[in-house]
Amino acid sequence: MRWLRFEKEGKSHYGILEGNTVAQVAGGPFTRHRRTGKTYPLRSVKLLIPVQPPTFFCAGLNYVEHIREQAAKRGEAPKIPTNPDMGYRFQSALVPHGHDVVIPRDAGEKVQYEGELVVVIGKQAKHLTEKNALDCVLGYTIGNDVSERDWQRGDRTHWRGKCCDTFKPMGPWIETDVKLETLKTTVRVNGQVTIEFPTNHMLFGVRTFIASLTKYITLMPGDVIWMGTEGSAPNLKHGDVCEIEINQIGTLKNKFVRER
Amino acid sequence: MRWLRFEKEGKSHYGILEGNTVAQVAGGPFTRHRRTGKTYPLRSVKLLIPVQPPTFFCAGLNYVEHIREQAAKRGEAPKIPTNPDMGYRFQSALVPHGHDVVIPRDAGEKVQYEGELVVVIGKQAKHLTEKNALDCVLGYTIGNDVSERDWQRGDRTHWRGKCCDTFKPMGPWIETDVKLETLKTTVRVNGQVTIEFPTNHMLFGVRTFIASLTKYITLMPGDVIWMGTEGSAPNLKHGDVCEIEINQIGTLKNKFVRER
Repeated sequence: MRWLRFEKEGKSHYGILEGNTVAQVAGGPFTRHRRTGKTYPLRSVKLLIPVQPPTFFCAGLNYVEHIREQAAKRGEAPKIPTNPDMGYRFQSALVPHGHDVVIPRDAGEKVQYEGELVVVIGKQAKHLTEKNALDCVLGYTIGNDVSERDWQRGDRTHWRGKCCDTFKPMGPWIETDVKLETLKTTVRVNGQVTIEFPTNHMLFGVRTFIASLTKYITLMPGDVIWMGTEGSAPNLKHGDVCEIEINQIGTLKNKFVRER
Repeated sequence: MRWLRFEKEGKSHYGILEGNTVAQVAGGPFTRHRRTGKTYPLRSVKLLIPVQPPTFFCAGLNYVEHIREQAAKRGEAPKIPTNPDMGYRFQSALVPHGHDVVIPRDAGEKVQYEGELVVVIGKQAKHLTEKNALDCVLGYTIGNDVSERDWQRGDRTHWRGKCCDTFKPMGPWIETDVKLETLKTTVRVNGQVTIEFPTNHMLFGVRTFIASLTKYITLMPGDVIWMGTEGSAPNLKHGDVCEIEINQIGTLKNKFVRER
């Protein structure tokens, strides 16, 4: 089942996507809900981010080749994390599928995508185990953890390197029926495939991160966990279009433009 | 003027505090609002965090003595930040005035307070200057950036060191009329003063941080910016009561208990 959030005539609604038809819903996936009976063609609605997360968690370094390649680019030895330490991002940077990513005027050339699986939490949860970790998950969407590498390395925090306005595209919708083991991430820039990788080949998987996190932290409905990315990416420039596809979920597509 | 959020008969409301009387309001400080005519004695209502922030910014290292003392404790040379790089915290850790801070069962002994001024944003804002930075500010509250120092140093992120459930007390209310230059922070543990410092003696002040941040990031109504702390703190143990007072604003008081 696919949950999406959309704007129609100036108001935001949740909907259920069936083929190319959106069935409007009163309420949403985190509360009681019912179909209103109204339907719209998918192409006629404006997609919003599928959820405004109360807390925005981000796993960070979670694929071994990504860690090795980023370290090699800096001429350093790779530091492979030994524990699932959770990072986080600014909610203010989130934009939906189809929204432009605006590269700040004074950003450097090393603006890159990171294609990520996003876990969407459906239920309040604490003290989960690896075995029951997925009980709190509503479904999955896609994130692009856009990064400006000079700021990421040079600043004391990731505020500009990762969290400039529009640097966190998320969407297009939440898919509730996913087999993690068979997911594949494919990234295309201007239609050309730049990387493909098995989405679930993580250093620490979804179950491990949720079990670890909920030892200390209560997850709430609507929280998101971005699961990190594999490999390295080319620099993106004004006019480039980046698509992140995860089979079973969908494709998150955004154009990059440089601020005038 | 003092805005607070409170629970009464299972519902949350905004109110305006006048002396020891709470005037209930429909709406709140970030939307249209009007007095309902209902009033309550302050002691009869349960205080909530004064705002659930869309994004939770945190300045981090922002007082020179704090940076020097923390470095000395680790036997390192102090690294004074050269730019106002903004950090952030998990919203999930926020609790109100009067709520217990629960020290996790397996936390070490070095659980410490950090008394901080909190800026509450009232209006959407981008590209502010140092001159007009305060135009977007609704008012100020108080935060306790509780830290477990072993996790803070040892983990790759601040997820456990700073963001365990209940580690971010914030309140008791928002004061809109504040003279930054004359603020003084006083911290007491079990009634004994442990530190006093001029609140505004920051490395980078409120105007500087807002001007810097809004070059890249849009602030939204309800966002909070925690401004860092001065000096060092004793270890807190089960049963200790920590009060952070900032004159003109109020006192944020929380008991520390260790998880059984």
